[in-house]
Amino acid sequence: MLKLDFHPAGRHFLQIPGPSPVPDRILRAMSYPTIDHRGPEFAVLGLKVLDGIKKIFKTQQPVVIYPASGTGAWEAALTNTLSPSDTVLMFETGHFATLWKQMAERLGLKPEFLGLPGIEGWRRGVQADMIEKRLREDAQHAIKAVCVVHNETSTGVTSDIAAVRRAIDAAGHPALLLVDTISGLASADYRHDEWGVDVTVSGSQKGLMLPPGISFNAVSAKALAASEHAKLPRSFWGWAEIIEMNKSGYWPYTPNTNLLYGLSEALDMLQDEGLDNVFARHQRLGEACRRAVRAWGLEIQCADPAVYSPVLTGVMMPEGVDADAVRKIIYERFDLSLGTGLGKVKGRMFRIGHLGDCNDLTLLAALAGCEMGLRIAGVPLRDSGLPAAMDYLAAQPNVVSLKAA
Amino acid sequence: MLKLDFHPAGRHFLQIPGPSPVPDRILRAMSYPTIDHRGPEFAVLGLKVLDGIKKIFKTQQPVVIYPASGTGAWEAALTNTLSPSDTVLMFETGHFATLWKQMAERLGLKPEFLGLPGIEGWRRGVQADMIEKRLREDAQHAIKAVCVVHNETSTGVTSDIAAVRRAIDAAGHPALLLVDTISGLASADYRHDEWGVDVTVSGSQKGLMLPPGISFNAVSAKALAASEHAKLPRSFWGWAEIIEMNKSGYWPYTPNTNLLYGLSEALDMLQDEGLDNVFARHQRLGEACRRAVRAWGLEIQCADPAVYSPVLTGVMMPEGVDADAVRKIIYERFDLSLGTGLGKVKGRMFRIGHLGDCNDLTLLAALAGCEMGLRIAGVPLRDSGLPAAMDYLAAQPNVVSLKAA
Amino acid sequence: MLKLDFHPAGRHFLQIPGPSPVPDRILRAMSYPTIDHRGPEFAVLGLKVLDGIKKIFKTQQPVVIYPASGTGAWEAALTNTLSPSDTVLMFETGHFATLWKQMAERLGLKPEFLGLPGIEGWRRGVQADMIEKRLREDAQHAIKAVCVVHNETSTGVTSDIAAVRRAIDAAGHPALLLVDTISGLASADYRHDEWGVDVTVSGSQKGLMLPPGISFNAVSAKALAASEHAKLPRSFWGWAEIIEMNKSGYWPYTPNTNLLYGLSEALDMLQDEGLDNVFARHQRLGEACRRAVRAWGLEIQCADPAVYSPVLTGVMMPEGVDADAVRKIIYERFDLSLGTGLGKVKGRMFRIGHLGDCNDLTLLAALAGCEMGLRIAGVPLRDSGLPAAMDYLAAQPNVVSLKAA
Amino acid sequence: MLKLDFHPAGRHFLQIPGPSPVPDRILRAMSYPTIDHRGPEFAVLGLKVLDGIKKIFKTQQPVVIYPASGTGAWEAALTNTLSPSDTVLMFETGHFATLWKQMAERLGLKPEFLGLPGIEGWRRGVQADMIEKRLREDAQHAIKAVCVVHNETSTGVTSDIAAVRRAIDAAGHPALLLVDTISGLASADYRHDEWGVDVTVSGSQKGLMLPPGISFNAVSAKALAASEHAKLPRSFWGWAEIIEMNKSGYWPYTPNTNLLYGLSEALDMLQDEGLDNVFARHQRLGEACRRAVRAWGLEIQCADPAVYSPVLTGVMMPEGVDADAVRKIIYERFDLSLGTGLGKVKGRMFRIGHLGDCNDLTLLAALAGCEMGLRIAGVPLRDSGLPAAMDYLAAQPNVVSLKAA
Repeated sequence: MLKLDFHPAGRHFLQIPGPSPVPDRILRAMSYPTIDHRGPEFAVLGLKVLDGIKKIFKTQQPVVIYPASGTGAWEAALTNTLSPSDTVLMFETGHFATLWKQMAERLGLKPEFLGLPGIEGWRRGVQADMIEKRLREDAQHAIKAVCVVHNETSTGVTSDIAAVRRAIDAAGHPALLLVDTISGLASADYRHDEWGVDVTVSGSQKGLMLPPGISFNAVSAKALAASEHAKLPRSFWGWAEIIEMNKSGYWPYTPNTNLLYGLSEALDMLQDEGLDNVFARHQRLGEACRRAVRAWGLEIQCADPAVYSPVLTGVMMPEGVDADAVRKIIYERFDLSLGTGLGKVKGRMFRIGHLGDCNDLTLLAALAGCEMGLRIAGVPLRDSGLPAAMDYLAAQPNVVSLKAA
Repeated sequence: MLKLDFHPAGRHFLQIPGPSPVPDRILRAMSYPTIDHRGPEFAVLGLKVLDGIKKIFKTQQPVVIYPASGTGAWEAALTNTLSPSDTVLMFETGHFATLWKQMAERLGLKPEFLGLPGIEGWRRGVQADMIEKRLREDAQHAIKAVCVVHNETSTGVTSDIAAVRRAIDAAGHPALLLVDTISGLASADYRHDEWGVDVTVSGSQKGLMLPPGISFNAVSAKALAASEHAKLPRSFWGWAEIIEMNKSGYWPYTPNTNLLYGLSEALDMLQDEGLDNVFARHQRLGEACRRAVRAWGLEIQCADPAVYSPVLTGVMMPEGVDADAVRKIIYERFDLSLGTGLGKVKGRMFRIGHLGDCNDLTLLAALAGCEMGLRIAGVPLRDSGLPAAMDYLAAQPNVVSLKAA
Repeated sequence: MLKLDFHPAGRHFLQIPGPSPVPDRILRAMSYPTIDHRGPEFAVLGLKVLDGIKKIFKTQQPVVIYPASGTGAWEAALTNTLSPSDTVLMFETGHFATLWKQMAERLGLKPEFLGLPGIEGWRRGVQADMIEKRLREDAQHAIKAVCVVHNETSTGVTSDIAAVRRAIDAAGHPALLLVDTISGLASADYRHDEWGVDVTVSGSQKGLMLPPGISFNAVSAKALAASEHAKLPRSFWGWAEIIEMNKSGYWPYTPNTNLLYGLSEALDMLQDEGLDNVFARHQRLGEACRRAVRAWGLEIQCADPAVYSPVLTGVMMPEGVDADAVRKIIYERFDLSLGTGLGKVKGRMFRIGHLGDCNDLTLLAALAGCEMGLRIAGVPLRDSGLPAAMDYLAAQPNVVSLKAA
Repeated sequence: MLKLDFHPAGRHFLQIPGPSPVPDRILRAMSYPTIDHRGPEFAVLGLKVLDGIKKIFKTQQPVVIYPASGTGAWEAALTNTLSPSDTVLMFETGHFATLWKQMAERLGLKPEFLGLPGIEGWRRGVQADMIEKRLREDAQHAIKAVCVVHNETSTGVTSDIAAVRRAIDAAGHPALLLVDTISGLASADYRHDEWGVDVTVSGSQKGLMLPPGISFNAVSAKALAASEHAKLPRSFWGWAEIIEMNKSGYWPYTPNTNLLYGLSEALDMLQDEGLDNVFARHQRLGEACRRAVRAWGLEIQCADPAVYSPVLTGVMMPEGVDADAVRKIIYERFDLSLGTGLGKVKGRMFRIGHLGDCNDLTLLAALAGCEMGLRIAGVPLRDSGLPAAMDYLAAQPNVVSLKAA
């Protein structure tokens, strides 16, 4: 019998940028007995989560819930709207943008990959002006979709999606706007309808505080219309049948019942805290984290303060330091999981997640673990980061506190 | 806050042919905190389940585990092995065979749908001689794959897969053999390697006793070779990258961590009971169920005793009785969920599941609920079915009993 | 690592008259993290359960909740109200009345044990007229308390407490009335205030559907006054300090936090179903059970239909049959736990619990297990009991059904 | 429906000196369905925990497990061994020693309360020489028992029990030695047999990491002999009947089944980590905590480094600061529960628990919460305490780390 709690004494600190720590309420909810997905009680659950999730995407339009992890929802966004050999314009914001581009290639699309030179795009996010320029050049409208990542999990940069929308509009281009906010949803402000996004892709294991296993496509009317003519083969991911059956609270095939229990609970929790309060909490924790990093004298991966991510902070290592060796020390000595550097920045940085079910003391614990591990690894630090982070958190009360409870 | 236990006092009896009741051990396992899917402890879990699941499929070859429900694994089997417009030979055993055929069409394949007239195929399962005959006619080997359902969840018929293998071999035909045993695995004997199956498709929510949300492809060397040339676009479902990363216990994208906890526990439970004992238990419960149905004077949907399903029993209604009206009474009065009639037999039958975490008293409770509901609905029954089922169960001890514990 | 699910495949049927099966909602509630029993959030929980439990006892007076199992609450009732060598009048209704008497002796009290000859008292319950007669004889009021068991868990007899009250009043006797309804509360109608009970003793693991570990004293003003002069030493059980601190939602020593979570959930469940509906459900299940026993041709332990217990049914064995040998077969073959015969009826009977989180199909499953086991043991049965029970349950819909949900 | 997770976003930090945080493994174990406490599977559980708990007390003699919280086990120790009006010698180490003395009075014993003047005893623990002196004076052996607290939860002082044993022996006095290690067991080294303790009292909600609700008496042969003649009335707490039934793994009355599941899991966890490693972990965390307190420039309640508690640290406030006002800020702003000052030091100190399921980052988080709260409350601190604690923890690896796992 495998013990499923792998950790020695005391709690594990899971501070990767997702999966984020799953709150006890959600773990308990998920452990209720599975029910008949065709029975009357299921419809109560189905209708609740289908309605509730719209509020999180800030949309009045359908949100498709897949019994599959987030990568599947990327595929769904592409196969429902595009045809073989279609050109799509993508922007290199980091590792996940790069993976999405590779997926597009595998599916037989022709992605064009815009980006800043070197790792600049990995530090500054989407450049809407570059998109506008490229679209203006595309007089024949060969480009069928613009695909961007809202919150780049590999870097800690949250791009300005409204600016991308304005760029497309300014260019007068009919391309669909597909946005990945897998790690941004329910942590960073996101507005599917207001920003005119056609397909928003997201997943469960980040701001929604669920385990991985369900993912989402929020779908505009324009995207839905496009899907009627899109020629990429699809069946499991097909929107039409799902959206039709969802009207009665059911799915055409077996949904992920126990994770939907968890989603129901997550929606209650987010509503109780208030979505704007959730965003403010993430902003505040992000700022505290960055103050610690600056006190250490280390560089933050995101080079543009306007697009600092409230979800995670990338911490760059001085020349010659292997970030993964530091992470290993921190993990083994302090039972703290951090995100590795991915792709172009492998070994050059680590990532601190401060998303989802996170609060002041959890962040400070994570910062303490980082600081001790950095010192053990021999990384020279200017100052302790804890006082800097504590000063900020003490001076800036969180919006929702126990007092209000 | 939505209450996630929808039932009034006492336990709900979930006797649909899947999702089957999830044992407490698995529900508790699933509720452990989510861990880093890139951390060292995950590899321990990953390697354990990847190895353990092979024993369930009786294979030495790779089993791909998808973080998606069973329908996705159908799609994976097709897209990994086939190219647009390929002809596939499918056999109409019931509703799920029909849905798989529809999927093949949606994905741009050309399914040929063999079958017996009317609903005879729905009552007798795969006719291997018809497959052999058709393959012999296909001198050009236009048929690239033979797709059959092992245990038809819509009817209660468990087809003879070894016979299909012999048919293909007798015809000297190179077609791949793709088999769906979504509802058969870990309940009915299944032998991926011995029967020469190329891709076996299965899911979590039946004999594995898990909630829905993970699914499987067991993959032969021949299937793997075919996948190198198959042209259907695929990314999420692509075997190669997954099988490669699985070697170290990881997945290329985020796996369904908490359901893998459940899978780990399910594998322990099945190993503790012994797979052959599990099969014997299902056979015994199936026979008890059929004896009750015969005592009622009602007809069993499966017309060939050689292929009675150990997983579920389809019960046909007399002329003029709406099976769904009966089911509704049973559900509302006795908190018992039964399977509806699907497709061609809608309203004509209901299905009693006796799979997974099921034992004598649970089955007898379900039969009691059926009998009371049938009487309330005014369906004339010859005798009470309970004594017939009890006589059999009392006379035939189960292989594993508490005494042995 | 000990596996905590001791049972082979399928659910265990726990049909002893307590501990009764604990519903999933309560098990999940109990597994929430323990909190500070001196913190502000605890008071919310404390005040809720202290208020809610009063409705279950039908009292406006204090109910003391002990972090101890039911036997402790027996001791509390005695030590808070009585002094060394006090005479108490007890009535032999069965094994638990006998144990309570033994406890009184150990604590230095002088119990008088009224009763019918042989096992007649074990089949007919409290005889109020005998109590009245004895009290009338006690002109000096040497008797300080009358102690009776409401629902005798060892026999399946529910005595008439209102009649005992009338008997005391008719005798004009000042004795306190102490009542044990450990197994009756929240299953059988009980009215602490209306019936003029001075101390009601109860526990968690029966009608309240909780695991064992908390117990109760409902306390009248007269009992509270008596406690000020009672001389038996007491500290842990002392009412005064607990009742005082309970006003703010706290306890003088560490309460049983996680079981209080469960109690909070149980109170919600009972309120949702409606206490009168709960009683009606128990009555209905009791009647169905007795019809099966009669169909078998076996004798019911309770000889007076006016006091049949809605909680459990005692089933007497024919001469020469060892009831525990039958129970052993039933347990080992059908994973069904039944209550043993206790004390004077050891080996002569077994007990079927139909209390708490029980419904029609669970009872029928239990009856099926009994019937098969009796046959395997060679006990001659007149008829199958299942049809008799099913006829009744089908004809008499439960008050609360899924339809209403 | 009351939400049982009372906290806003992120984990609550429960750093009171008990109840300590309950690990997920134990919470899951406790949520298994309740079983028949008279059935064969229960004996497996019973025998396991009865045997395993002896290793924790380091005894070969019986350990009685009560289904009641710790205060009950105090009462059990007294009522099983003593008679009305017996003199007992107790030592004032703090609030809990004082409460135990009050209990002795309520039970009709005559406690003599030794102690240092003022709050000195609260800062230095048991003075064995004072006990020896008093016993030498007691030529008639009027003193029947010496009662001391091993780890005073109210102060953070861990007294030297072996020294008390030596003192009794040096005086040649036959008094029993009764020791309360409710908050010391499984956190601080404790040796029931080697130290010649007659009754050791403990509870579940501290080093055993369980919720409150079960408690213990480890019983020497001398104590058992004394119990045969002890005259205090007792029934629920009586050792003889329990010890007799425990031989077969059962209890004379209903045990606290679900907490015993938790105890079984706790025993596995402690054995996996190794009891000596557990003690070393607590010592190390205690030292780190004290270094932070010293860096703040605040005084540690325990004035004798030889008896610093590894379980908790009492932090004294400067003159004029209300410790409870500070605690309130810390609780409301940082979701961190600390222990209040009790009795003589009410409002003068708070207590930081670092026991049970605690590790480096959890302690550092708690220290960060304290530091921020102290600053917000305007308490002048010399330095940040975090760097001091981090330096120590980074320099001194824990014995058991993930590397070893």
